[in-house]
Amino acid sequence: MTAARKREIHLNLNILNVGVYGSAWRWPSVDPAAFVDPAHYIRCAQIAEKGKLDAVFMADKPGLVDHPQYRPFQALDPLVVLSGIAATTSHIGLIGTASSSYNSPYNIARRFASLDLLSGGRAAWNIVTSAEIEIARNFGRSDVTAHADRYAIAREFVEIVRALWDSWEDEALIADKAQGLLLDISKIHPIDHQSKNFSVAGPLTLPRSPQGRPVLVQAGASDDGRNLAAGVAEVIFTLSQTLEKSIDFAADIRRRAASFGRVPEDVVILPGLCTVIGDTEAAAQARRRELEELVPAEYGLARLAGTLQVDPDLLKLDEHLPEDLPIPVNHNQTMFAGTVAIARRENLTVRQLIRRLGGGAGHRIVAGTPEQIADDIGTWFAAGAADGFNIMPDVLPEGAETFVTEVVPILQRRGLFRTEYEGSTLRDHLGLTRAERGRFSTAI
Amino acid sequence: MTAARKREIHLNLNILNVGVYGSAWRWPSVDPAAFVDPAHYIRCAQIAEKGKLDAVFMADKPGLVDHPQYRPFQALDPLVVLSGIAATTSHIGLIGTASSSYNSPYNIARRFASLDLLSGGRAAWNIVTSAEIEIARNFGRSDVTAHADRYAIAREFVEIVRALWDSWEDEALIADKAQGLLLDISKIHPIDHQSKNFSVAGPLTLPRSPQGRPVLVQAGASDDGRNLAAGVAEVIFTLSQTLEKSIDFAADIRRRAASFGRVPEDVVILPGLCTVIGDTEAAAQARRRELEELVPAEYGLARLAGTLQVDPDLLKLDEHLPEDLPIPVNHNQTMFAGTVAIARRENLTVRQLIRRLGGGAGHRIVAGTPEQIADDIGTWFAAGAADGFNIMPDVLPEGAETFVTEVVPILQRRGLFRTEYEGSTLRDHLGLTRAERGRFSTAI
Ligand SMILES: Cc1cc2nc3c(=O)[nH]c(=O)nc-3n(C[C@H](O)[C@H](O)[C@H](O)COP(=O)(O)O)c2cc1C
Ligand SMILES: Cc1cc2nc3c(=O)[nH]c(=O)nc-3n(C[C@H](O)[C@H](O)[C@H](O)COP(=O)(O)O)c2cc1C
Repeated sequence: MTAARKREIHLNLNILNVGVYGSAWRWPSVDPAAFVDPAHYIRCAQIAEKGKLDAVFMADKPGLVDHPQYRPFQALDPLVVLSGIAATTSHIGLIGTASSSYNSPYNIARRFASLDLLSGGRAAWNIVTSAEIEIARNFGRSDVTAHADRYAIAREFVEIVRALWDSWEDEALIADKAQGLLLDISKIHPIDHQSKNFSVAGPLTLPRSPQGRPVLVQAGASDDGRNLAAGVAEVIFTLSQTLEKSIDFAADIRRRAASFGRVPEDVVILPGLCTVIGDTEAAAQARRRELEELVPAEYGLARLAGTLQVDPDLLKLDEHLPEDLPIPVNHNQTMFAGTVAIARRENLTVRQLIRRLGGGAGHRIVAGTPEQIADDIGTWFAAGAADGFNIMPDVLPEGAETFVTEVVPILQRRGLFRTEYEGSTLRDHLGLTRAERGRFSTAI
Repeated sequence: MTAARKREIHLNLNILNVGVYGSAWRWPSVDPAAFVDPAHYIRCAQIAEKGKLDAVFMADKPGLVDHPQYRPFQALDPLVVLSGIAATTSHIGLIGTASSSYNSPYNIARRFASLDLLSGGRAAWNIVTSAEIEIARNFGRSDVTAHADRYAIAREFVEIVRALWDSWEDEALIADKAQGLLLDISKIHPIDHQSKNFSVAGPLTLPRSPQGRPVLVQAGASDDGRNLAAGVAEVIFTLSQTLEKSIDFAADIRRRAASFGRVPEDVVILPGLCTVIGDTEAAAQARRRELEELVPAEYGLARLAGTLQVDPDLLKLDEHLPEDLPIPVNHNQTMFAGTVAIARRENLTVRQLIRRLGGGAGHRIVAGTPEQIADDIGTWFAAGAADGFNIMPDVLPEGAETFVTEVVPILQRRGLFRTEYEGSTLRDHLGLTRAERGRFSTAI
């Protein structure tokens, strides 16, 4: 198996439209309309490939959420954009989000399998269950399905998709021109899935890909979310504010993975890392302050209220957070908990907290020189707090270009990161072997 | 409006995997696995663009239908492949099929809008309702919805998609960096569609495209199908065996379009044309015979039985078709009628009919020299039987290359076809103006 492999850092670029800061679109170098321009995402992916990163990621919310008047969002369909990236790059992995709550398993299996073939085996699916009411209302629902039910459906959805991806044996495509036989249909298997939630006959219309099947990615943080991630995901995104919490998270995930019969090292854990890079530490801090100040004031408050799921009027700018905030039901509890923890730990008023968050996704922010960023990455990696990072530059494409030209070479000199791609598939980059047909590391 | 515009021929390349003949995959120049290789479709599209064609088309059936052991089929997700084509071409239009029976309107609106932005305004959606039971079973159904109900749903589906495409006013994206205001949310409108079949709040996550919104394409042939096509489609694909029938069809469509309040000339009617090209007429005929002979024998019979919706055992190879074939309910009646008409008109036995059809889609086949193909196209166009053609080469990419390098220049010399693209969007190529927001030529 993979037990003896060399541990190396894995880096993913999260193309979070024009940057993780809520103010990135106001930054001088940024085209504020780039978030709806697929060419922008292609440019960012080409920068990531130049830096030999493992993959790029496109998040997704199929609906207008989170106060779009104040900041860009994930507007474009990720698979359309990733397909454009696939056709204009050669190595970079392609991770796209799709919701198990508002799609059919057959369409999702076929679209990701098509992307996997288009890219020569570089596709990955980030499984999400979609918590927002604005999304539910675009898909015939008046309410969001309860958290536990969404995850139960997601588990079954993934099971169907994996079975469809594996419905062709590798020998099915015989293409015998002389005999006039294209396929050996006895080697293509219906899946005949039948349940209360789904009934899908199969088989898929497509053979397997150079990497076997697309990589599965998940970012669940709740108990149900962690079980799905530990049960099926090969890459796990996570939000980790401190080294200690991240070590705990990784240990928890690997314990769960082992309990599902998986090899714990087959799970690549990538905490988010927001980067603010300067030539000096002072320059980086100044850049961070500028970005904080540019976050539209109304947005900072609205976003914080959304994360905490409270009425904005409840939050007084020059006071601390209310003591008795209820944990939001059926919403993202990690972002809630992380945000409250920062406020308490750093003893911040609401105004200070808003600045501190920068309108970002709540991920850890490191502002410093390229050396300092590389040090941080190296420390976390050595401590086992991360197998690598989901890099979220402050501003895009600028911050990605700086990361690739200034931080990556330091990691390479230290022997922590590849200087050339060694393989051609995303599984190659991740140090995973080609997925064997019908061999899932766990039955879910 | 468009009443005074110059009438020119419109040409679309139907990338029907490796060619319209059921035997195309056995042809010497063909890679039989190309049907599952996106690079093959990109290559064909680049050939079409070299020939200044209006568009390429990717059909779709999300399921294994029509005896896949004997011939290639539409295996890949069309929007993934068209997105790859978009990123590697600059002008060619991109028509993709998606089913209104097995998708959500919000996802379809967003995916085509994303493709439209990725391509700079070159996207088009071919609306189909999906007649096959194998497809229904992949999407939680045990049976195919009745024909009339499928079309009623399709009409409503299209209405929702058009409304979503138009949910942003052009002035909504203000991107005022100084004020910190990205969008004028008062210019982005929910659609609040609510009915028995669909409930979709909107708005879409995307602004309109350089061509306003994607072009609508339809190929319905039944009464309901023609009403949908005449009501909403800007391009209509059709299967027409004879010049007279095609003139009748065009007149019927334009009459219906007028009755819906549309400008009849705003509908671009493209009959299918299968091309078999040779240096001499004899060479073309010999090529056709070779292709007919290479159709796997079992396939020809199985396919004919499928088109007629009868048991294959009912068809005796050396007899004529049974007299009393029932018109198939809830299936493609045009292909049925066209096939029976050829058999009767040309007095063919089942064996002869199978050869005559070549395992193709039942579209008109012209075998001849480049001059003869160009003459045929010119005659049909002049007679008003067609606004252009849906070109279906015998074998791909070979037949597309021959068409582009040998037939297109003749049409250009005759002043019938563009020598350069004059605009950049698909609507430009089709002689249509940019779609105005909320101005549909008919209310459906
Ligand atoms: C890096 C990262 C990326 C995420 N991407 C998406 C996304 O694209 N769409 C989405 O709806 N949720 C996304 N999420 C949210 C997670 O799927 C998940 O819902 C969240 O971490 C809360 O965990 P829970 O669902 O187990 O409660 C993302 C989370 C993280 C940490
Ligand atoms: C050129 C052409 C392309 C078509 N493409 C598709 C397709 O991609 N998928 C599909 O399910 N049906 C396709 N059809 C079938 C039509 O959508 C339609 O169902 C058929 O012409 C019968 O008409 P009716 O639906 O009105 O009975 C196509 C038909 C034609 C003529």
